[in-house]
Amino acid sequence: MDDEFALNSFLTQFSAITSKKILIHGGGKQATKIGEQLGIQTNYINGRRITDEKTIDLVTMVYAGLVNKRMVAGLQSKGCNAIGLTGADANIIPAVKRPVKAIDYGFVGDINEAIDGRKLDIFLTNSLVPVIAPLTHDGKGQLFNTNADTIASAIAAAFTGVYEVRLVYCFEKKGVLEDISDENSVIRVITKDVYRRLLMEGKLADGILPKIDNAFSAIGLGVRQVVIGDAGNLRENCSEQITGTLLI
Amino acid sequence: MDDEFALNSFLTQFSAITSKKILIHGGGKQATKIGEQLGIQTNYINGRRITDEKTIDLVTMVYAGLVNKRMVAGLQSKGCNAIGLTGADANIIPAVKRPVKAIDYGFVGDINEAIDGRKLDIFLTNSLVPVIAPLTHDGKGQLFNTNADTIASAIAAAFTGVYEVRLVYCFEKKGVLEDISDENSVIRVITKDVYRRLLMEGKLADGILPKIDNAFSAIGLGVRQVVIGDAGNLRENCSEQITGTLLI
Repeated sequence: MDDEFALNSFLTQFSAITSKKILIHGGGKQATKIGEQLGIQTNYINGRRITDEKTIDLVTMVYAGLVNKRMVAGLQSKGCNAIGLTGADANIIPAVKRPVKAIDYGFVGDINEAIDGRKLDIFLTNSLVPVIAPLTHDGKGQLFNTNADTIASAIAAAFTGVYEVRLVYCFEKKGVLEDISDENSVIRVITKDVYRRLLMEGKLADGILPKIDNAFSAIGLGVRQVVIGDAGNLRENCSEQITGTLLI
Repeated sequence: MDDEFALNSFLTQFSAITSKKILIHGGGKQATKIGEQLGIQTNYINGRRITDEKTIDLVTMVYAGLVNKRMVAGLQSKGCNAIGLTGADANIIPAVKRPVKAIDYGFVGDINEAIDGRKLDIFLTNSLVPVIAPLTHDGKGQLFNTNADTIASAIAAAFTGVYEVRLVYCFEKKGVLEDISDENSVIRVITKDVYRRLLMEGKLADGILPKIDNAFSAIGLGVRQVVIGDAGNLRENCSEQITGTLLI
């Protein structure tokens, strides 16, 4: 999303999808950049962002404002009737503050109950395309920072009773790689057995583990197909010519 | 909106309205404050904000992000099923860049065509309450800064064929004052004739003129009643016990 050319190509491909569709986005890099300009330091503990009061305001501005509305305006320009939402809008994603154990993550929300797909289906049945920023709320007025991959998995699961759902995770690699140094070593299919073997062999990079966990969690909840692939290959990964990794 | 207590009272009163309703908000003070922190200077020519590239990003963050989502989360906590929108979302408010004459206002949008109320009515008929940030778009990917009072007037006009519409402008005074130094000199009713007399007598402060112009423009388009009053008196101004100024 920080590369205007790549973003434009992605939005063009997304607009061309003819099925009902929902886009869930992040924005961490942009938030860090604007946070630096505002003198808000990004604090990490064990590689996870801590969301203090200033940071939740920052990510609300960047995710729900700048990033979300630019994507919505971009999609509208391509004939895609996008509508930008957070989990607070229409109460689509209720959450609870992550309990404080060893670490207080601050205003980070966990999705504890299944998402009610009917709230989002209002948009789909009216030919609107939800574009969702990774924010949730507690129903008591507090917004939360919530991982976009987790939101995507929960939303995909919410629609399994109504639609045949494909969940496509987009990132900057072609798929899950057998050899992290070889861009072309994409693993075509990962089953739970393959996943266990890869874990044992220590072949999976840290960044990919939560994506795969979210993927299998969605499959466990009835999502038919999950694909992990390059944002630039969205078209293929939404077709039958998948170039990324298929998880089943 | 920069007074948390007053905002909370306003949102409580707004939540209590039982008719179909739409909230249109501003956020100029908050944008100026965060702009200062970001080193973005607010430029005015003849009292009007110039929206350069940095400023449109700033107001997109502040209006559509921080201010809008805080209001949405606050309304949700009061049982009001709010959904935050800009003019780009669901393409509800198409606009064109204000033509450059003596002054280039930058990314400021004018609403040149009547708003299609059906796009917003989808939300109303699904018991959702639109909360609209003062941004529009050109359908080609560009967002615009647009005056919130003007948006309110255009939206009210869009619904005149379908609903009996009351447009309530909220600000920090009890109504249009006969004597600007006397808070209690609220003019109860302003007709076009009264308006002409007040203008001739030079009794109207500069800040109120555009509000009255927007009001009469809405009335000209079929809006039944327009009220200008204190945000703290929203309940009364949405009832038959109007404390503000009624324009007819």
